[in-house]
Amino acid sequence: MNSKAPLYQVIADTIKERIAAGIYKPGEKIPPIRCLTESFGVNKATVHKAFGCLKSEGLIENRVGSGSYVRFPEKIQTTPHLFDFRTDYLNEHFFPYRQAQSIFNELFEKEKAHALAPTPVEGDPELLRVLSGRYHLPVERMLIISGAQQGLDLVSKVFAAKISESILFENPTYPGAISLFRARHFVPLEEDGPDLTELDQRLTGPVRLFYTMPSVHNPTGISYSNAKKEALARRAREHSFYIIEDDYLGELKPPELRLVDIEPRHTIHIKSFAQTTLAGIRLGLMVVPEALYAQFLFAKFSSDITSSGLLQKFLREFLKNGLYARHIETLRRKTLNRRRRLQSLIEQFPFLSATPEQFGYSLWLKTSIALNLPHELWCRGEEFSFDPAYKPFIRLTFMHMDDATFIQALDYLHALLVRCGTPHPL
Amino acid sequence: MNSKAPLYQVIADTIKERIAAGIYKPGEKIPPIRCLTESFGVNKATVHKAFGCLKSEGLIENRVGSGSYVRFPEKIQTTPHLFDFRTDYLNEHFFPYRQAQSIFNELFEKEKAHALAPTPVEGDPELLRVLSGRYHLPVERMLIISGAQQGLDLVSKVFAAKISESILFENPTYPGAISLFRARHFVPLEEDGPDLTELDQRLTGPVRLFYTMPSVHNPTGISYSNAKKEALARRAREHSFYIIEDDYLGELKPPELRLVDIEPRHTIHIKSFAQTTLAGIRLGLMVVPEALYAQFLFAKFSSDITSSGLLQKFLREFLKNGLYARHIETLRRKTLNRRRRLQSLIEQFPFLSATPEQFGYSLWLKTSIALNLPHELWCRGEEFSFDPAYKPFIRLTFMHMDDATFIQALDYLHALLVRCGTPHPL
Repeated sequence: MNSKAPLYQVIADTIKERIAAGIYKPGEKIPPIRCLTESFGVNKATVHKAFGCLKSEGLIENRVGSGSYVRFPEKIQTTPHLFDFRTDYLNEHFFPYRQAQSIFNELFEKEKAHALAPTPVEGDPELLRVLSGRYHLPVERMLIISGAQQGLDLVSKVFAAKISESILFENPTYPGAISLFRARHFVPLEEDGPDLTELDQRLTGPVRLFYTMPSVHNPTGISYSNAKKEALARRAREHSFYIIEDDYLGELKPPELRLVDIEPRHTIHIKSFAQTTLAGIRLGLMVVPEALYAQFLFAKFSSDITSSGLLQKFLREFLKNGLYARHIETLRRKTLNRRRRLQSLIEQFPFLSATPEQFGYSLWLKTSIALNLPHELWCRGEEFSFDPAYKPFIRLTFMHMDDATFIQALDYLHALLVRCGTPHPL
Repeated sequence: MNSKAPLYQVIADTIKERIAAGIYKPGEKIPPIRCLTESFGVNKATVHKAFGCLKSEGLIENRVGSGSYVRFPEKIQTTPHLFDFRTDYLNEHFFPYRQAQSIFNELFEKEKAHALAPTPVEGDPELLRVLSGRYHLPVERMLIISGAQQGLDLVSKVFAAKISESILFENPTYPGAISLFRARHFVPLEEDGPDLTELDQRLTGPVRLFYTMPSVHNPTGISYSNAKKEALARRAREHSFYIIEDDYLGELKPPELRLVDIEPRHTIHIKSFAQTTLAGIRLGLMVVPEALYAQFLFAKFSSDITSSGLLQKFLREFLKNGLYARHIETLRRKTLNRRRRLQSLIEQFPFLSATPEQFGYSLWLKTSIALNLPHELWCRGEEFSFDPAYKPFIRLTFMHMDDATFIQALDYLHALLVRCGTPHPL
């Protein structure tokens, strides 16, 4: 702390440090002004000024009539570094755009203006049928959404009342869910799923939802064992809570048992196509328990009426003629290949270690030394967790660069890491 | 009431009648079970059973720990009648689909896979620039949304806390806004805008938002006078509330003074393209006050990351090459022509009257006799208002049918109305 700084700055810095250290946690109230005037021995105006600084930095927020609170991190991805190990979208060049072009063309040829006609709220009936067949999911409880994030948003609408008090998360977890749901309650994630002892302790409270990515977890890349899936499903049944099964990249693995198969009455299943196709096509599907279907349909309607019918028809044709299946096959090979190359680079550096058995577009690493590197090159562990234990972790995504850039990026990364510490002799 | 019906049914019917009569209003608590056991002289189980009936009919809902409430009407448009005077989307055949096809084709030719690349959260930069030019709106406070309904949904996120207590609506108003915001407070709409005396009375309460469609109002088709716009803007400034200016069809009129022009610091401006293009392309724009921009951007991000980049690029090209402007011209002519034909049909029936100076895709009528007609043929006044004064109103939309169907539909409507009452001699 700078002792020559004005008093209000000293107070602001102190509060900032306490937030960074997790003493004041996101969503928690910070001590009221009158307490701080006492403990710092200053007047109200000084504390007000300190609060003003913290607010303008986006660290705290006012709630009318209730005081100041530590803000949840509301990160929107910023412009990434030249070599982008942050973005978890697919590079556009991996997508068969020529075939996409043909499909759009044929749609207008065959359906004429009808290609642009409205679809029902739940989605294009034939797309629903095709998806039901491919993913063995019941068509009568399915709805089309504009990507997985919208699926989570609909959950937040249907379970609006006090949701942040009654939803559990894996630690670490997807930041988009943390900020949307204002996550407060976490269960540690082990290499095969959640820590069941900790989960059981949490279940003594008022739990209505558990958010999980059991197949290709973000950011860790792990998947649940079947035993842990069964254990989680049993608890959902016994304690009457819903599992949100976010299947955002499960397709990159061979087919697995899903929670929606084990416990359909307590599982809200969300599958994204924004991640396996391209960001230009923002679609996903959702299967919800029968008792909730009408509420989800209405939540979708009041969010954006329905997802673009044209894009739905495109996805339908892309699936029907087998192009999607072929695309996923290519993607699996490509992902595996890049993962291996990145892994063998990482293995040269003794201060980096990766948990085994990861899938998906990223590599989750632990560093045993501080890496003083460009800030936005990759995602840091603290973007996925409030727990200081995850500070030494980083997530490197590797599918957003084209082939030439990826090769250069590996060289760049190697050079950077050499600066941080000596590599193993090759 | 059926005196031979079981007791629980009698109680259910009585409550139903009270809801219909507006004694128990949407969103209001209905008397607790113990009160009803007393007033009906029955036991708890009977009242429970009556509540069960009302719940299964969707008339009431439970809130945990708080009792039973009258539900808000959560209408999702049902399958319309053969002759559809309900749907307010454009018929797909009015849209130049061949030109749409060419634009998609050219996009893939020129941009290749990049046509499907991600866009920033706020939207495609060039689309933003083009829209800013066409609509004279500041690009730095604009974001692209997936239709006007999403714009409203973002408002409900940004102003989440107790929003239904602090938002005013026109009476009547758009049902999608009523159910999304759980509307409770209304200001009567006159032929040139809101009743200012009533508005001023409402402004003594905690008002943060006023939702309005000042140009081509839904369902009445009227527009505000400039004097009323100025008066509303002045109040927003003085009482520090935000106007939500839903400009969903204003383009069908010659350019007018907008609230966003008069009072940009207190106006959230929403413009839909889903209504002027087709439902297959679900896009809109939103301009928000500078102080709120970051919050809206984050609300958009956590709703669905961003609107489809491909559709944004399509709209950009459609605007850039003048096709959109030409399409709107055609639309204006076509709308005017159909309105005139419908109006001269209506004028034959003395029990029907229309307020003058309506624009848009619909005709708002008052009936002086009960029309015993197919239920879903058109929208009834009560879909737009809780006020019994609007029960004798109907809204007929006339742009969702193709030309041949529209002609048949006029004949059908004429025959139906003749059955209801004698027409004027021709």
